[in-house]
Amino acid sequence: MTTLLRVKHLGFSSGSPLVVIDGSVAEALGVRAHDRLLLRFGSGEAVAVVNVARNLPADAILVNEEVAQALGVRDGDAVEVSAAPPPRSARYIRDLLRGAWLGAGEVRAIVEDIVRDMLDEVEIAALVAAVSQRGLSVEEAYYFARAMVETGERLELGVEPVADKHSIGGVPGDKTTLLVVPIVASLGYRIPKTSSRAITSPAGTADRAEVLMSVNLTLDEIREIVLKVGGCIAWGGALRLAPADDKIIRVEHPLSIDPLLVPSIMAKKAAVGATHVVIDIPVGRGAKVGTVAEAERLARMLIEVGRRLGMKVACAITHGDQPVGRAAGPALEAREALRALMGEGPPDLVDKAASLVGILLEILGVEGGKQMALEALRSGRALAKMREIIEAQGGDPRVKPEDVPVGDKRFTVRAERDGVVAWVDNAVIATAARLAGAPKDKGAGVELHAKVGDAVRRGDPLLTVYSEHSSKLRAAEEYLESATAVGVGKPGLEALVKKVLEPAPPAYPLAVER
Amino acid sequence: MTTLLRVKHLGFSSGSPLVVIDGSVAEALGVRAHDRLLLRFGSGEAVAVVNVARNLPADAILVNEEVAQALGVRDGDAVEVSAAPPPRSARYIRDLLRGAWLGAGEVRAIVEDIVRDMLDEVEIAALVAAVSQRGLSVEEAYYFARAMVETGERLELGVEPVADKHSIGGVPGDKTTLLVVPIVASLGYRIPKTSSRAITSPAGTADRAEVLMSVNLTLDEIREIVLKVGGCIAWGGALRLAPADDKIIRVEHPLSIDPLLVPSIMAKKAAVGATHVVIDIPVGRGAKVGTVAEAERLARMLIEVGRRLGMKVACAITHGDQPVGRAAGPALEAREALRALMGEGPPDLVDKAASLVGILLEILGVEGGKQMALEALRSGRALAKMREIIEAQGGDPRVKPEDVPVGDKRFTVRAERDGVVAWVDNAVIATAARLAGAPKDKGAGVELHAKVGDAVRRGDPLLTVYSEHSSKLRAAEEYLESATAVGVGKPGLEALVKKVLEPAPPAYPLAVER
Repeated sequence: MTTLLRVKHLGFSSGSPLVVIDGSVAEALGVRAHDRLLLRFGSGEAVAVVNVARNLPADAILVNEEVAQALGVRDGDAVEVSAAPPPRSARYIRDLLRGAWLGAGEVRAIVEDIVRDMLDEVEIAALVAAVSQRGLSVEEAYYFARAMVETGERLELGVEPVADKHSIGGVPGDKTTLLVVPIVASLGYRIPKTSSRAITSPAGTADRAEVLMSVNLTLDEIREIVLKVGGCIAWGGALRLAPADDKIIRVEHPLSIDPLLVPSIMAKKAAVGATHVVIDIPVGRGAKVGTVAEAERLARMLIEVGRRLGMKVACAITHGDQPVGRAAGPALEAREALRALMGEGPPDLVDKAASLVGILLEILGVEGGKQMALEALRSGRALAKMREIIEAQGGDPRVKPEDVPVGDKRFTVRAERDGVVAWVDNAVIATAARLAGAPKDKGAGVELHAKVGDAVRRGDPLLTVYSEHSSKLRAAEEYLESATAVGVGKPGLEALVKKVLEPAPPAYPLAVER
Repeated sequence: MTTLLRVKHLGFSSGSPLVVIDGSVAEALGVRAHDRLLLRFGSGEAVAVVNVARNLPADAILVNEEVAQALGVRDGDAVEVSAAPPPRSARYIRDLLRGAWLGAGEVRAIVEDIVRDMLDEVEIAALVAAVSQRGLSVEEAYYFARAMVETGERLELGVEPVADKHSIGGVPGDKTTLLVVPIVASLGYRIPKTSSRAITSPAGTADRAEVLMSVNLTLDEIREIVLKVGGCIAWGGALRLAPADDKIIRVEHPLSIDPLLVPSIMAKKAAVGATHVVIDIPVGRGAKVGTVAEAERLARMLIEVGRRLGMKVACAITHGDQPVGRAAGPALEAREALRALMGEGPPDLVDKAASLVGILLEILGVEGGKQMALEALRSGRALAKMREIIEAQGGDPRVKPEDVPVGDKRFTVRAERDGVVAWVDNAVIATAARLAGAPKDKGAGVELHAKVGDAVRRGDPLLTVYSEHSSKLRAAEEYLESATAVGVGKPGLEALVKKVLEPAPPAYPLAVER
């Protein structure tokens, strides 16, 4: 059945075609909320998801800008409206809900329709929730990754090999990438690193790097920079590499799940043309992955999906129980990374970065990569390469760690008794840093003065919170009155507590899969 | 962080509090789509789910009527806006997604927040998708049912026992309830039957009954009518019995799943105060339940959840391979039901109704109920009771089957060869009837002239489509040119084909659980 309805503009874009009609109109058209309508006006056509409202005129249809533009309509125009069937991909999601495993064509249709905004968020939410329950087969993970790559932009460097590095994340203060990229580039490899901004952490790699240089690069700029200096650190969010992933994350975020993690990571690596990838899987209390067994399952899936996409992938299972290095927050971390490149880095950060480079070089066919990485740091070649990258990305190549501005409002938490640091709570550190303003206020964050196994005396500083605003500092301070970031146990247990980080910190990685 | 934003009315209600803000505002507030905002204006307060848009002014917040009323705001008013945490129930859904089983308090919080519109549809979709994958424990099913009852309206008859009947549905033409209610009432029992309208079928019980009487009754009217004449057939949709269920169905519908079926049914039975319930589970190709094993699992769950809610429940597993009786569509079915009450019903319909009454009486402690039911039909007492019910519900108590108007546009499908009817396709019958206009056009539908096992000769009528509009009749006709509703096999196979319906049609039920 077809009806003529008068258009009224909602006056905004919402990312996908959307209309609002009165309940009586919906009934007459035989549609319900989340069904679809086909709209026609002149030669324009649009399919939009139905929102059902009350108190609207019976001849009205509210349209968002996506619909208005597709149809070329103005307020008051009469559009032809009829029920439209759900896209094929919606039926595939229904099949999955009823126990089906998805084939390549089905996954491709789903991913295409996510990119073209033909799927409703209720359908995407059902997809991710169902997958989070029953898991993805390795075939499905590969199909999703491939479809995500094929429906997005790609970086074509025209040279091989192309190295890359990724971290599953979840550990505050993990600025390893800011070391790995210049080290790898200084060793003569190309590493076009794209990174994300923080969602729930105090800083993402893009937030950290942005303290030193612009990270808003186009694909053309990335290609130019990588071909010139070997590496870059860009924000990946606006590059439309695997754009389906960005839309899936929109519903995963409120649900706190990411069952499409493997295809999502591997698609982004394939989209930049990576041929050799090292993936860091931090494990521990407060990290994303809780157990080594879980990390090994994830590693096997990443390696296999990478292999099918034509990449050599190695995974490093690393300690994620406490922050890497001592700083969490964009500017504090950028400063710490610069210091590490100057040979003054915290040992766990330096060892982790060198180990990851070693693993990466191993799959590239080169032995002794870890030693080469340490030598690149010692000799200053990694620092020089970082300065080239900073300059290429529009930053100040002469920047010194002490030039990096950090928040001047500060507050220090001190040990209430003599003892040894038994644990550091990642989640508390992250929350305190975020309350202090990170990642939006680049100078906000937390600096740790003691880490697991360190002996402290009553009154010794445990951590300092940095903020750019007194009110935010106060919020972090209040929070830390009730939450313990650094746990101090009885004195004399150093050896026992350090054992938690066996085989002796900072010995990364625990395991390598390839 | 708190911001002042200027209100603009969206001008409609959408069922739950909703606001739209620009992406830049969302970023400043630290929220993303599907997060929540707390809005304050004077003494008014509202929590609303965030929709993120582009092209909106940076000081604007669009609000729907739910938000406008809660705050008492007009266009241009400045409201205080800050991020609000998700409700506890959203965290319980996240727990479930991560493998948790839900306790009574958690389910109660989820159901309460669904009723109060505190949960986003993405969260409800994730809940139903996850449950559809991992299943409900019997405890969870009971908790959901109890919470649904406790958050809704209830019918208090003040007498016991209270009988009730339900069908899982899925079989077109199943007008059994129109016989069971008057039979049970004529035997002296109270049966306050609430029913649904069709969603995907040609007619729901409420649609069928509405041909003969008003079904839009209030709870007060239901009580009055049932206490006076013993039974009623009302539309349950507006009674707010288990209102959470209606909102859950809003997201289940586009996904074509109903993993909360058991609590949803049992909550509605408990809400009308039922003490003894017979539930019909049709099984077969094209029915909701495909196998007897699946039906038995469902039956055990229904019986156990009913027991915990204080009800005696029996389930009948019945043939669902083809329509019950010969008619599908509101008026055609009302006419067939009236004829059956007058002793001229199709044998499968009469036997099914009498069998269900027998099972119901058995759990009420009475033997020989099926014979009593047949006797009530034979003696005319069931018909007299139906006329009392029709009169009490504002219909014409003297109505005759031939008074019921049916569509005057007709089209008949005929057998293309001699043979025996091997199968009838429920889905094709339903689609044809819906294309012809059912359930909205009461006179539209399909009448079968032959059923499984019947011998037909080339040219014999197999079915007639009824419609009120030539264009709709044409749509059904075109559809039936490519879809086969009635499958005719080789001649001489009557006995073999009838065997499909063993133990000899129309012998219902296949099984009883209690």
